[in-house]
Amino acid sequence: VDSVTGEESVQRMMAEKVLTVDTMNSCVKKVEYAVRGPIVLRAVQIEKELKEGVQKPFSEVIKANIGDAHAMGQQPITFFRQVLAMCSYPELLDDDRFPEDAKGRARRILQGCGGQSIGAYSASQGIECVRQDVARYVERRDGGVPSDPDNIYLTTGASDGIVTMLKLLVAGEGRSRTGVMISIPQYPLYSAALAELGAVQVNYFLNEERCWSLDVSELRRALADARRHCNPRALCIINPGNPTGQVQSRQCIEDVIRFAAKERLFLMADEVYQDNVYAEGCEFHSFKKVLFEMGPEFSSTVELASFHSTSKCYMGECGFRGGYMEVVNMDPEVKAQLTKLVSVRLCPPVPGQALMDLVVNPPQPGEPSYSTFIRERKATLSSLAERARLTEQILNTVPGIACNPVQGAMYSFPRVTLPARAIREAEERGQAPDMFYCMKLLEETGICLVPGSGFGQRDGTFHFRMTILPPTDKLKILLSKVKDFHQRFIQQYS
Amino acid sequence: VDSVTGEESVQRMMAEKVLTVDTMNSCVKKVEYAVRGPIVLRAVQIEKELKEGVQKPFSEVIKANIGDAHAMGQQPITFFRQVLAMCSYPELLDDDRFPEDAKGRARRILQGCGGQSIGAYSASQGIECVRQDVARYVERRDGGVPSDPDNIYLTTGASDGIVTMLKLLVAGEGRSRTGVMISIPQYPLYSAALAELGAVQVNYFLNEERCWSLDVSELRRALADARRHCNPRALCIINPGNPTGQVQSRQCIEDVIRFAAKERLFLMADEVYQDNVYAEGCEFHSFKKVLFEMGPEFSSTVELASFHSTSKCYMGECGFRGGYMEVVNMDPEVKAQLTKLVSVRLCPPVPGQALMDLVVNPPQPGEPSYSTFIRERKATLSSLAERARLTEQILNTVPGIACNPVQGAMYSFPRVTLPARAIREAEERGQAPDMFYCMKLLEETGICLVPGSGFGQRDGTFHFRMTILPPTDKLKILLSKVKDFHQRFIQQYS
Repeated sequence: VDSVTGEESVQRMMAEKVLTVDTMNSCVKKVEYAVRGPIVLRAVQIEKELKEGVQKPFSEVIKANIGDAHAMGQQPITFFRQVLAMCSYPELLDDDRFPEDAKGRARRILQGCGGQSIGAYSASQGIECVRQDVARYVERRDGGVPSDPDNIYLTTGASDGIVTMLKLLVAGEGRSRTGVMISIPQYPLYSAALAELGAVQVNYFLNEERCWSLDVSELRRALADARRHCNPRALCIINPGNPTGQVQSRQCIEDVIRFAAKERLFLMADEVYQDNVYAEGCEFHSFKKVLFEMGPEFSSTVELASFHSTSKCYMGECGFRGGYMEVVNMDPEVKAQLTKLVSVRLCPPVPGQALMDLVVNPPQPGEPSYSTFIRERKATLSSLAERARLTEQILNTVPGIACNPVQGAMYSFPRVTLPARAIREAEERGQAPDMFYCMKLLEETGICLVPGSGFGQRDGTFHFRMTILPPTDKLKILLSKVKDFHQRFIQQYS
Repeated sequence: VDSVTGEESVQRMMAEKVLTVDTMNSCVKKVEYAVRGPIVLRAVQIEKELKEGVQKPFSEVIKANIGDAHAMGQQPITFFRQVLAMCSYPELLDDDRFPEDAKGRARRILQGCGGQSIGAYSASQGIECVRQDVARYVERRDGGVPSDPDNIYLTTGASDGIVTMLKLLVAGEGRSRTGVMISIPQYPLYSAALAELGAVQVNYFLNEERCWSLDVSELRRALADARRHCNPRALCIINPGNPTGQVQSRQCIEDVIRFAAKERLFLMADEVYQDNVYAEGCEFHSFKKVLFEMGPEFSSTVELASFHSTSKCYMGECGFRGGYMEVVNMDPEVKAQLTKLVSVRLCPPVPGQALMDLVVNPPQPGEPSYSTFIRERKATLSSLAERARLTEQILNTVPGIACNPVQGAMYSFPRVTLPARAIREAEERGQAPDMFYCMKLLEETGICLVPGSGFGQRDGTFHFRMTILPPTDKLKILLSKVKDFHQRFIQQYS
């Protein structure tokens, strides 16, 4: 045993730590995630101050920064929670309060679990009967296009699947370093994951003038540019879009597929908002379906991973971290590597897998729970549609705020015109101008939004992302306060 | 829109895929995870063959490869599942079948959730009241050593926290590349994570002759060796040990802490088996407690992360992916980076967080559920202790199998002496000799174990890891079959 002198111990106490910002993983330092970034940290601080009795011009913080429906009062689907309760405590299978169809689902899920317990690890790819149900869902959704359960991987939320795929894709050094094309604006999981992996982020701009649509000419520009300094190999698209809310047309999806095929890009289709489509004339078309309808030249060659989740749509079950991805035309050896990689983390959370099973296998006509299920789902989706419309409408009454139609998803991403003086003051403070704007909004009204700089935007433009999730009455108040704030802000900085 | 000629389309169909084993992330290719590796893939195949009616010398596959208690028939703790059911479906809070203490826990957890729903995202660090309960648990466990809830991070199983910490730690290039010291044998999450991160794995051998104990002299050897080619910065220790089952003595833990302090190593203490201690004279001492009892020279300087989980101990709730880590003496700026990093994945699964809350805040004396809880926990732990003893005893009756005492955890890791002819045949087949042995065992008996090569072992030695989890009767059959197989194998290859 080493003896330690007084002098050594004093030295040790004054020595630098082993793990510091200078010695840590430099890629992690580059990671940013605005949805829970600095403005949210301040919002949480303000909530604490309010609790401690600090006087403010408002009595509560409204967190319109994150796509968390339940936190904003949305109710879960009764059927889903009944089944989950019985899966947790199977003695409830004898309880008359639960309908037979819910009991049947619970029994089926438990049968698929080791020892008939949701406490057992599942297969790393996910419970087999759940993957079969997912495949059937995909086939029904896509008008019969075949889906193989073996190409389905259950994941810990869609984020998990997205990060796993990016991990597999990122390779090479220097000029051969993998580039991944992502939309600007984007959901900052993508930029965060690319930063952490040390991959090259290749931005393609969505067209704000045309409702955030995707132009293939812009894809071509971005790709040509990127090829000068990296090896672009993948293209990510979020449809319906986050933060922008656009629902891509079928033609656009075909164009993207054609582009990916020609330019040899792995396609990643983030479709977690697939049931959140509100606008007249808009329709969700899955990338998989369109791919297959384009014929074997594309359907047997284009490599695609599609992602879904239990967090959005009409379920809003974020906390369960349920999700899946479907891989199409994946090289079998790569698939084996993927299967090996996910095995290290054992399996996704089983309650989330059970929930995904119910999402893809909901009550059917004739079943006892059907009418309640339909009623609840319809109420939630139509309420979201109404709030999407309201948000767009009210924001567009504000001079200096221009909001594209919220065609789908859960957010508005309006453009704000900021006075030059405000921009200068922000820059003096070392803040992005829209962060400066949003911070002031937070301090003055308690409303927490996320500045557009957290998602990406064309230089010289400013936006914020606001969820449409607060209940209608509260949303109206929120929008009215945003309106008043904006007008004060413009006046103050004119 | 590009037009596509017949020739181009034929070429495209014959072109190589974008994502192949040659173009994918090379670090991922180096990842191995034996617990769910090739032998398990074969076991699953055999199960399918049995189902299809293929004749085999056995009627079922026994999966003794993975620490999954529920899959082997262990029952969950009633109280935990009652609370989880009520959290899933709060209408059950009115149900007389549930005791008041369970209802109280459920209400408290729901109060800590957004919109009072476990479907809401939680704070990325985890639900606040759960972190407070974890801190109180740690203080009680450690005889009053203070624990700050702000140093607690709830995680998606312990694996998540371990990988996150390794991510933060791994930096540098070439000779400055971070090295991480891990025990041999180890739980292969560590080697897999280090391979994926491209870090340097620095092996230190546990002492098989002395019950798999840790000698500081071996740590010194490994470190001195490693410093010639990398920058060793962290030391991982699993206590109680996986796969080895040893419970480190208090003296050993002090020695490791002293070593880490002197050599400036970040300590990672994987303590997921902290309630699984069976052997007389063995006791679990948390690294945190020992650190603090060594006085401020160590307790205010040594950087430590401790990990726990809902998957093992008496709970066995692997599928919920519940866990936490406690960080000690972490640089505040690094902690901010850690908080930022975990925010990208939003939050750990809320059902798992709820479950962790119950684990650290179980029924207390006087509460309605107390006696049942104690009875169930005791029954599970004493059954595990008995199976640990039985396993060691029976394996040690087999000439050529030498099993160290299973002091804790859930596995035996006996050494098998293999005849030279068998070793040669394995090498001709390009197989590790213990993989060859285990594969034959699987094909002849249906018993799935994991070869020692999957965990690491001294050159020229061979082991297998077998769980102690099958129910006692089945375990006896299993051990008897292993015995018979071994004797046949020795005879065949003599």
